[in-house]
Amino acid sequence: MPITLYDLAGANPDLRFSPYCWRTRLALHHKGLDFEAVPHCFTGREQIAKSGQSKVPVIVDDGHWVHDSWKIALYLDETYPDLPLLFPDAAARAQAKFINSWCDWSLLPNTRTLVVPEVIKVIAEADKAYFRSSREKALGMPLEQVGADKAAAMKSFVQGLKPAEATLDDQDFLHGAKPGYGDMALFGTLMWPVTLCPSDPIDRQSAVGKWFERMLALSPWVAKAPTVRSLAGAA
Amino acid sequence: MPITLYDLAGANPDLRFSPYCWRTRLALHHKGLDFEAVPHCFTGREQIAKSGQSKVPVIVDDGHWVHDSWKIALYLDETYPDLPLLFPDAAARAQAKFINSWCDWSLLPNTRTLVVPEVIKVIAEADKAYFRSSREKALGMPLEQVGADKAAAMKSFVQGLKPAEATLDDQDFLHGAKPGYGDMALFGTLMWPVTLCPSDPIDRQSAVGKWFERMLALSPWVAKAPTVRSLAGAA
Repeated sequence: MPITLYDLAGANPDLRFSPYCWRTRLALHHKGLDFEAVPHCFTGREQIAKSGQSKVPVIVDDGHWVHDSWKIALYLDETYPDLPLLFPDAAARAQAKFINSWCDWSLLPNTRTLVVPEVIKVIAEADKAYFRSSREKALGMPLEQVGADKAAAMKSFVQGLKPAEATLDDQDFLHGAKPGYGDMALFGTLMWPVTLCPSDPIDRQSAVGKWFERMLALSPWVAKAPTVRSLAGAA
Repeated sequence: MPITLYDLAGANPDLRFSPYCWRTRLALHHKGLDFEAVPHCFTGREQIAKSGQSKVPVIVDDGHWVHDSWKIALYLDETYPDLPLLFPDAAARAQAKFINSWCDWSLLPNTRTLVVPEVIKVIAEADKAYFRSSREKALGMPLEQVGADKAAAMKSFVQGLKPAEATLDDQDFLHGAKPGYGDMALFGTLMWPVTLCPSDPIDRQSAVGKWFERMLALSPWVAKAPTVRSLAGAA
């Protein structure tokens, strides 16, 4: 039986944009596990109630509920040690943990003003009141003001990426010669702006941009995921 | 012949506070190399002219000049491969490179408002005009305004440390069970606020604070380095 992944989706259920759910999608692909990515809405909490909390990603594996992208990654290696490992050794896990934490606590806050104003455009009508009130509370201003200065929002995003830019100037992947879970964490995080921004947010000539292309080449299925740009072009 | 390290110093030559020079001090200690840390002032550039640039740390090893803490670390491993390695393997180097870049491009900018107003208090009179004009240009405001809101400056510092805090909640060192050069990079970076702030800037009950104590226990000589607090107590 395939694993079920509850995956944040827009009003168009094919639009998947959560930076955390993307990490889990990449992890499941890396393991080669069969899974179904079921669309989840912000207001559809009863769908994941059995996980004991209210946020995706959540997976259900043979009746076992696991939430939180980091914990899911650990679970997958523990449960399927014979499939390709996300953390081949303790050093790789330690390294991934720091990069994952950096994505959560530094890069995402620096990306927020760029992407939050785009999220409300794509989510289901039923989700909009919740999204607006929770984000306005967190950001301390009306959504219309968040990212109103587009140049400042882009500057914050590019500045936020600097640690990766400086690292990738010198090596092919954050983990070195080969990608590790830390690379998946950054790749998944960047799928948030990549999926939702009206123009490509990543400078493909930068070190991060070239790394992003290398990651896409290793996971060509990612390039087929709908974005607001591909959906607008298809409409 | 001992290696010469040109090390940024205050008007009191015993006060050493550069976050980059500290990384090199820690690296030289880790290698077990004999070195002399010669005090250097911002306006003493002719002292390091042979390095071909104007910033410390600079080392001179048997007539060979090397600058930039990261390049010095690579040089030390390359030149002294039989002494304890800073980068025992490619994975450790890749991991350290990211943490080092994070210190430079994320943590230091988040620490600046806390520490820059303290720097001008301790440097030599001759350095003050240069320091003021360069920092006011970089920060876009008079030094008296930088960090005037002490609570905001401390909040930015604590927020900047969050990726390390989240990582160290779960593991003893950034590199895992044992410290690596990434741990030295963070430890050295934190010696900037630790040396210069009028009160201890690190919450010793936090995960970072407990890690800092573990690092101190491994390098007890660091605790003997003068700080503005120890110098005020001794005066």
